[in-house]
Amino acid sequence: MTFKELRSIILQKKSFLCVGLDPQWDKLPASVLRHDSPLFEFCRRIVEATAPYAVAYKINTAFYEAHGAEGWEALERLQAFIGPSFFRIADAKRGDIGNTASQYAQAFFGRMAFDAVTVSPYMGPDTLEPFLSWKEKSLFVLGLTSNEGGAFIQQVKTEDGALLYEKVVRSLATHPCAERIGWVVGATQKKLIPSFLSASNNSFYLIPGVGAQGGTVEDTLNSFASALPNILINSSREILYASDDESFAEKAGDRARQMVEAMMPAFGNSP
Amino acid sequence: MTFKELRSIILQKKSFLCVGLDPQWDKLPASVLRHDSPLFEFCRRIVEATAPYAVAYKINTAFYEAHGAEGWEALERLQAFIGPSFFRIADAKRGDIGNTASQYAQAFFGRMAFDAVTVSPYMGPDTLEPFLSWKEKSLFVLGLTSNEGGAFIQQVKTEDGALLYEKVVRSLATHPCAERIGWVVGATQKKLIPSFLSASNNSFYLIPGVGAQGGTVEDTLNSFASALPNILINSSREILYASDDESFAEKAGDRARQMVEAMMPAFGNSP
Repeated sequence: MTFKELRSIILQKKSFLCVGLDPQWDKLPASVLRHDSPLFEFCRRIVEATAPYAVAYKINTAFYEAHGAEGWEALERLQAFIGPSFFRIADAKRGDIGNTASQYAQAFFGRMAFDAVTVSPYMGPDTLEPFLSWKEKSLFVLGLTSNEGGAFIQQVKTEDGALLYEKVVRSLATHPCAERIGWVVGATQKKLIPSFLSASNNSFYLIPGVGAQGGTVEDTLNSFASALPNILINSSREILYASDDESFAEKAGDRARQMVEAMMPAFGNSP
Repeated sequence: MTFKELRSIILQKKSFLCVGLDPQWDKLPASVLRHDSPLFEFCRRIVEATAPYAVAYKINTAFYEAHGAEGWEALERLQAFIGPSFFRIADAKRGDIGNTASQYAQAFFGRMAFDAVTVSPYMGPDTLEPFLSWKEKSLFVLGLTSNEGGAFIQQVKTEDGALLYEKVVRSLATHPCAERIGWVVGATQKKLIPSFLSASNNSFYLIPGVGAQGGTVEDTLNSFASALPNILINSSREILYASDDESFAEKAGDRARQMVEAMMPAFGNSP
């Protein structure tokens, strides 16, 4: 699925919701832990419960790698289970030289069928090329991350007065594949969002930091008003752990529905 | 194994050689492809052939992830096969917020028994803390990468005149766990290495860029003279693909021996 197709689904479904599938072992309910593949089973039930509301799912590779080959197997099954009617993001934050980046692209775009992967620009724009050579696929480059420490490098003031992330954004905004390059911009970066949006004109934004990290849907819609409908608002912990007992899937669905209701004003509907 | 123990092994074995295990499918010999797990089998034979010369092995996660769960299984088997008498590095270049970084640390230090992992500082120094909380483990932070595009961010001139990587190095040089924080510094960055070494005083250096990427062992020893014996010189492609036929392991061993012979002057021996 391309960004253009994602945009259609967003407008049709009236939802910017991306559910982040970060299954933390010590928060899995007992019934799930008895399953052959607890990671897969937990996420499968979350996906089923949130499917009416979500337009995208973001799989955070770390939470699967922590369980070795079995975890990676759950990751593979999960992206296949989600299927092609949702925009599937591998939240992998990879970034390495060309021949290595090619292998990561093969992992997420070839072996698996993710539509996009999150990548770090720290090793230079050349490291994104192997991902961009997959013509039907997209990237979310780390723009302004949601954590406080993110400012340490991303917001360094450079010699010419620009902040570092602005330099990164500008260099990619004129890339021949710019329409397939989206950005990760934390909802928590309120003050800098307007300048980020103007520098990265017409891009797509993946927005973490809503929920457990402090941002709200309403504030996020305000901050990203000029970018609509090209945004995905990610929620992980708030949906996954809406309840810690056997009602977890039902409660995750409820929370997803509430979030999508809070998004309605952006589509010209009253909530 | 700690950096201190690695230093002892380097002096005892008179070798700085780290063999990078980046098995590229289309370069695997036919006999290996017939094996149940070609990635494991190829690397197992490389490890056996180079074990007399190497002090460390670096497993590049991308080359295993490209083969999904089976690839990840090969990675797990391989780090176990290499065993605790070598310094084992997961070349993963991970970098993410705290709760995600904790999962990556669990993957490489908990589930597997790597001694160090390569990490990206782009999301801020706070993202390294979950790795550093494993007291017996070390990190190699991306310092100056070997690729040309690496300069785009790492060598940006900041407002106060310093280059960006210098700011990163200085901030970590005074970290309470500084003795467990090493750096990835490309052999190709000759001009900047002296200032890097003085800023990151007494650290450990993982040096890619020798061989296929253009650097030589002799030049690298000269550039890093003031850091000796705290260096690992990585070679991947030059050793792995020294021959493309059934003699690959024998030729890999020969190439490793030649590289270690070229290191002898650094230990006060004639080659």
